[in-house]
Amino acid sequence: MHKGRLEAFSDGVIAIIITIMVLELKIPHEESIESLLKLIPVFASYVLSFIYLGIYWNNHHHMLQSAQKVNGTILWANMHLLFWLSLFPFVTGWAGETHFSFYPVLAYGIVLFMAAVSYYILSRTILSHHGPKSDFAKAIGKDYKGIISVVIYLAGILLTFVHPKIGVALYSVVALIWLIPDKRFERG
Amino acid sequence: MHKGRLEAFSDGVIAIIITIMVLELKIPHEESIESLLKLIPVFASYVLSFIYLGIYWNNHHHMLQSAQKVNGTILWANMHLLFWLSLFPFVTGWAGETHFSFYPVLAYGIVLFMAAVSYYILSRTILSHHGPKSDFAKAIGKDYKGIISVVIYLAGILLTFVHPKIGVALYSVVALIWLIPDKRFERG
Amino acid sequence: MHKGRLEAFSDGVIAIIITIMVLELKIPHEESIESLLKLIPVFASYVLSFIYLGIYWNNHHHMLQSAQKVNGTILWANMHLLFWLSLFPFVTGWAGETHFSFYPVLAYGIVLFMAAVSYYILSRTILSHHGPKSDFAKAIGKDYKGIISVVIYLAGILLTFVHPKIGVALYSVVALIWLIPDKRFERG
Amino acid sequence: MHKGRLEAFSDGVIAIIITIMVLELKIPHEESIESLLKLIPVFASYVLSFIYLGIYWNNHHHMLQSAQKVNGTILWANMHLLFWLSLFPFVTGWAGETHFSFYPVLAYGIVLFMAAVSYYILSRTILSHHGPKSDFAKAIGKDYKGIISVVIYLAGILLTFVHPKIGVALYSVVALIWLIPDKRFERG
Repeated sequence: MHKGRLEAFSDGVIAIIITIMVLELKIPHEESIESLLKLIPVFASYVLSFIYLGIYWNNHHHMLQSAQKVNGTILWANMHLLFWLSLFPFVTGWAGETHFSFYPVLAYGIVLFMAAVSYYILSRTILSHHGPKSDFAKAIGKDYKGIISVVIYLAGILLTFVHPKIGVALYSVVALIWLIPDKRFERG
Repeated sequence: MHKGRLEAFSDGVIAIIITIMVLELKIPHEESIESLLKLIPVFASYVLSFIYLGIYWNNHHHMLQSAQKVNGTILWANMHLLFWLSLFPFVTGWAGETHFSFYPVLAYGIVLFMAAVSYYILSRTILSHHGPKSDFAKAIGKDYKGIISVVIYLAGILLTFVHPKIGVALYSVVALIWLIPDKRFERG
Repeated sequence: MHKGRLEAFSDGVIAIIITIMVLELKIPHEESIESLLKLIPVFASYVLSFIYLGIYWNNHHHMLQSAQKVNGTILWANMHLLFWLSLFPFVTGWAGETHFSFYPVLAYGIVLFMAAVSYYILSRTILSHHGPKSDFAKAIGKDYKGIISVVIYLAGILLTFVHPKIGVALYSVVALIWLIPDKRFERG
Repeated sequence: MHKGRLEAFSDGVIAIIITIMVLELKIPHEESIESLLKLIPVFASYVLSFIYLGIYWNNHHHMLQSAQKVNGTILWANMHLLFWLSLFPFVTGWAGETHFSFYPVLAYGIVLFMAAVSYYILSRTILSHHGPKSDFAKAIGKDYKGIISVVIYLAGILLTFVHPKIGVALYSVVALIWLIPDKRFERG
């Protein structure tokens, strides 16, 4: 089985998710600057989710490039990741429209957490298909960043109960961690 | 004629269908947990349709991989399948929003049934282009699962007249059957 | 310059157009059969436009396959075609929602006509890039069907002034002509 | 790292942006010609943005074709460009719906300006990865057009304070400059 179509399908889905998110930026019916300023929270959540999806696409790109082969289990682990990513427009829009209030931020965190978990599952599924001594295993390494992300998301979810803004701040920390280029996969 | 562009086009359409379905998950205007809980039926139908489309993409991927060549008839048989798949967001949203009431569940079943039939037609069209002794014929085998799916969908449609929930239960059985990896195409 | 990315981009745009058209099939808020029956005209226009876009994708696929090279002019002639195709969801939805009344059917016809003209321009642009003695010139032949289509669309637009249903009937004739497989490109 | 998936992802995003823009052309509920004529400003802004996105796709296509290799920084410079392009449907719809009034035209100009800047950054990022003596450096040349575009956008933004129509006129001048085929990349 070739990985090409898996990459193409994932690219397609991520490209669509990243683009339809902008549809939640509803066009104001007025021409005033106030009507635009009201959109700032929705815009902020859009920027954050755009960065997340960019990170996922980027990492996915690198990971699949290191993979030599795929099987049915990998296809489904990938579909599972895409499922959680597909919920980004919903939670992004909800969190933005409600100005980052409690339940929407909680829902946002859970979706981010599940996406990170499903990405981790995908990487382990590919790893077990290639074996612990494969080039893929060397390329992926210990994946400290993946594990740290899951932990910070979890902390963000819990601290949302203290204040939603702490949650959003912690989610943003994960984005920053990943924006730093991942050297693990660029060695070759 | 090469199959590459057929695969790419199908991937594109399925990727878009699977993603725009999430647009039916309308963002609540309130920030309460109740407004989220109200979306559970729509969310449930989204999950179910996401799995179906994942199965179709997965099977389509395998089937086309076994095919060596395509012709004009295959292109149209494929377009016919994509047509029925394109109606998934509509019936999914309708069934979810009406909490799985009679007519929406019936419509959902008919679309699922027609998609399964059109998939079967597509496989037979490719088969007749390759011949009964081809590698494709060996790979596709008797397609018991495809035939069983059509029968269960039909039963689901009929039993929807007894109670829509029986219909939904039977439709879900088909999803479960297909989630079990299809060994027919993974042998090679 | 390679034609691969031109094909991929066109596939992407056509795949999206064909799929977002279904968003005009607004999900009824009721669960009655009447609410579904009301959608019949919108559904009819959806089916018709789906077939048109299938034909365009199919023909585009064949034509580009026969082409050996592309240039900047061809890229823009292709973009011009995609522009008119992108208006299909709008005119399809309008014609369907107004039950095929005068102005919407006229607008539908004009968009169909312009799409056919822009397709013809695209084929001539590719032809002039390959020369009259090229394999492409042989493959594309006289393009009688393309010319006949433009004429029938024009007749349909004019006869819409008599009655919109005559217009729709003539537009459908063009779809039927093209559904008959195009032997010109399948010879090789 | 291969550039193929970067191209495919960018194609996908641009294809989706160019297509969902048409969703801002809201289907009128009436069948009158007046209801269609009311859409002329939205349609005009759609045409303009369609041309811009066509230009970006075209130039992106040429630039990436000249590139031999990509790295993580290039991926993010590309994502940055896609971010600004993704805001085209929003500003296009807002400018059109408000009949090109002050703030919407200003917002449109800022997004156009930022897209041009991010395209310039992308080209410089690829350039620095290839080196000043590379084939890429020769192909891209001095990029006078890119610099002139940024300057005209800036002038357009400033003159919008005099009258929004002057802004729109200047934005359109940039489109015209780019519609003239770019010989720099077509030499080879």
